[in-house]
Amino acid sequence: MSVTAAQGFTAAGIAAGIKSNGNPDLALVVNNGPRLAAAGVFTSNRVKAAPVLWSEQVLKGGQVSAVVLNSGGANACTGPQGFQDTHATAEKAATVLGLNAGEVAVASTGLIGLLLPMDKLLPGVETAAAQLDEDGGEKAAIAIKTTDTVHKTAVARGDGWTVGGMAKGAGMLAPGLATMLVVLTTDADVDSAALDGALRDATRVTFDRVDSDGCMSTNDTVLLLASGASGVTPATAAFAEAVRAVCDDLGRQLIGDAEGASKDIRIDVVGAATEADAVEVGRSIARNNLLKCAIHGEDPNWGRVLSAIGTTSAAFEPDQLNVAINGVWVCKNGGVGEDRDLVDMRYREVVVTADLAAGGESATIWTNDLTADYVHENSAYSS
Amino acid sequence: MSVTAAQGFTAAGIAAGIKSNGNPDLALVVNNGPRLAAAGVFTSNRVKAAPVLWSEQVLKGGQVSAVVLNSGGANACTGPQGFQDTHATAEKAATVLGLNAGEVAVASTGLIGLLLPMDKLLPGVETAAAQLDEDGGEKAAIAIKTTDTVHKTAVARGDGWTVGGMAKGAGMLAPGLATMLVVLTTDADVDSAALDGALRDATRVTFDRVDSDGCMSTNDTVLLLASGASGVTPATAAFAEAVRAVCDDLGRQLIGDAEGASKDIRIDVVGAATEADAVEVGRSIARNNLLKCAIHGEDPNWGRVLSAIGTTSAAFEPDQLNVAINGVWVCKNGGVGEDRDLVDMRYREVVVTADLAAGGESATIWTNDLTADYVHENSAYSS
Repeated sequence: MSVTAAQGFTAAGIAAGIKSNGNPDLALVVNNGPRLAAAGVFTSNRVKAAPVLWSEQVLKGGQVSAVVLNSGGANACTGPQGFQDTHATAEKAATVLGLNAGEVAVASTGLIGLLLPMDKLLPGVETAAAQLDEDGGEKAAIAIKTTDTVHKTAVARGDGWTVGGMAKGAGMLAPGLATMLVVLTTDADVDSAALDGALRDATRVTFDRVDSDGCMSTNDTVLLLASGASGVTPATAAFAEAVRAVCDDLGRQLIGDAEGASKDIRIDVVGAATEADAVEVGRSIARNNLLKCAIHGEDPNWGRVLSAIGTTSAAFEPDQLNVAINGVWVCKNGGVGEDRDLVDMRYREVVVTADLAAGGESATIWTNDLTADYVHENSAYSS
Repeated sequence: MSVTAAQGFTAAGIAAGIKSNGNPDLALVVNNGPRLAAAGVFTSNRVKAAPVLWSEQVLKGGQVSAVVLNSGGANACTGPQGFQDTHATAEKAATVLGLNAGEVAVASTGLIGLLLPMDKLLPGVETAAAQLDEDGGEKAAIAIKTTDTVHKTAVARGDGWTVGGMAKGAGMLAPGLATMLVVLTTDADVDSAALDGALRDATRVTFDRVDSDGCMSTNDTVLLLASGASGVTPATAAFAEAVRAVCDDLGRQLIGDAEGASKDIRIDVVGAATEADAVEVGRSIARNNLLKCAIHGEDPNWGRVLSAIGTTSAAFEPDQLNVAINGVWVCKNGGVGEDRDLVDMRYREVVVTADLAAGGESATIWTNDLTADYVHENSAYSS
């Protein structure tokens, strides 16, 4: 499955020694063609890691023949040396694989502000290249984990073609994009412009609507590579839907594995005047620490939902707002609604529905609760 | 001290039975003149509590003769009945004290979405009126506490005149305003327009720059009442400075008592192109949960500062950013700076200095760390 579910791709995941605990930390994904089409979206953080700056340049050409990914270090805020290290990583992969370095994307994840141990990373590229395999997708997905407790893969199958992918991400998840590394592959015969359209449409309604902790990374990278190996060119809509489905699946897995989380929270904003209003309100609710604590405590504290809605510029009247928690409309017309004791919050998934009563548009944002475990995981050691 | 430090004011604080634990929950502050000048600033949340809607109307007249404050219930999201209850509270105080209800401000704090027990609150107003005292400021300050562990008062003395005040607030602290109830009093002989100017100038650089948890309340109220009892009209600048000093002192006390906090964090943004840029960057840093966890863990994780700066629209170049933690410039020119092991974070106050290297403007934002205690306090029971 993973990035080798589609024909035309090989992958590997190894332990290069970048992580001090000896866990896998280097992944390699290679597109064996015949096509080398690619598209990518990157963090909108203005402080971008060296591999993001590099890969943005690579993607401008619309061709990617290989991707080198490492965990154990983000190579962000590392200055000219950091960029040189990314360049050297691409050059190394190009030399070993007989490719053009300008078609090798690089992605890194881990602690910001540390130079990568290139004496381990570069030999690791060589080792990974020697282990490239048509079934290597699973190992590649494992090698990009940081604080992830599980590796994340997904696949969608069309008529004779496949879209597969892997993702990592567990903290610093917020729109623009959610913080993550994602590589999607397909054997559909699609050019880079079509890939770009499908990928942007998909990320806008999936990864961009995952908001674990409101923190935006310096390293977000989502790549979509097409080998064309199936020889099939799918209908635009069918291909777009497959890419969206894989992104949606991976996005849900990111939330499900968010640092310290005990609840997955789906925020459905309905009755909005515009989709942008719905997204703004959903994000405001998703980032409300007090609400996230209340949901952790299985307390249907709808007042915190209203106070979050009130900070937005969306169209609504305060005395027409309605809020349901797990289907119980605890707030009606901006005031007390159904009995809050009717709300059952025992299960992991919690659905908050905010009805702005201002139109027919809607959006869904995913987040999770705020827990003592999140605090522990992000205070007890550097990450 | 507190609201009775200035001449011309009496106050009381009693237990009316609004709080189920029997703690003090009702405060009354009366301006005995000869002036009744007043100014107020209120939450910018669009979901406003009934007492905010009421008091905004009262303040339009520029005269306030009394303020009734209660803890134990916010009277927010309570519909027409909630507004009627606030109105009845003002009417009750007016009847008991022989005042005009249109000059009685009301402020409430506590859980959102519950109607106040008026059968306890109205008799409480009568009890409090009977206990009004020139030394009642301390008791009033105690009666407005919610999750506050200490009551908060401050005073500044001019030449023959005084500004005093009380505040409550421990969570849901964020700009626009910080979530709080504050009553300031002065015996200076100042009209309502001058009070309004001094108050807005002061809150803009004090309460508006306190950001505990990024959550904005429905009930924020800051009132400044002048009795004129000193007979002295201070110079505009001296009066403004006294009001600012009292607001600054109270704002610091709010942060010092923030829910679950173990560190007070001062964020100095310097080298900004504009003050607005400095404030935007400071707030973005103050709201970064990952950084707040790191500081809790005494980890000088400057990468999280840079990733927060990167989400803003302020003028800066990523490779020119500098960050100091407790005076050690751990990030220089967007990369690794001085040795992070030199940073001593044992003490309660932590100073994060972010130099945008883009101009000469600056701003300071106060926040606190994110702790398991904050999660516990906001998940274990409704607040």
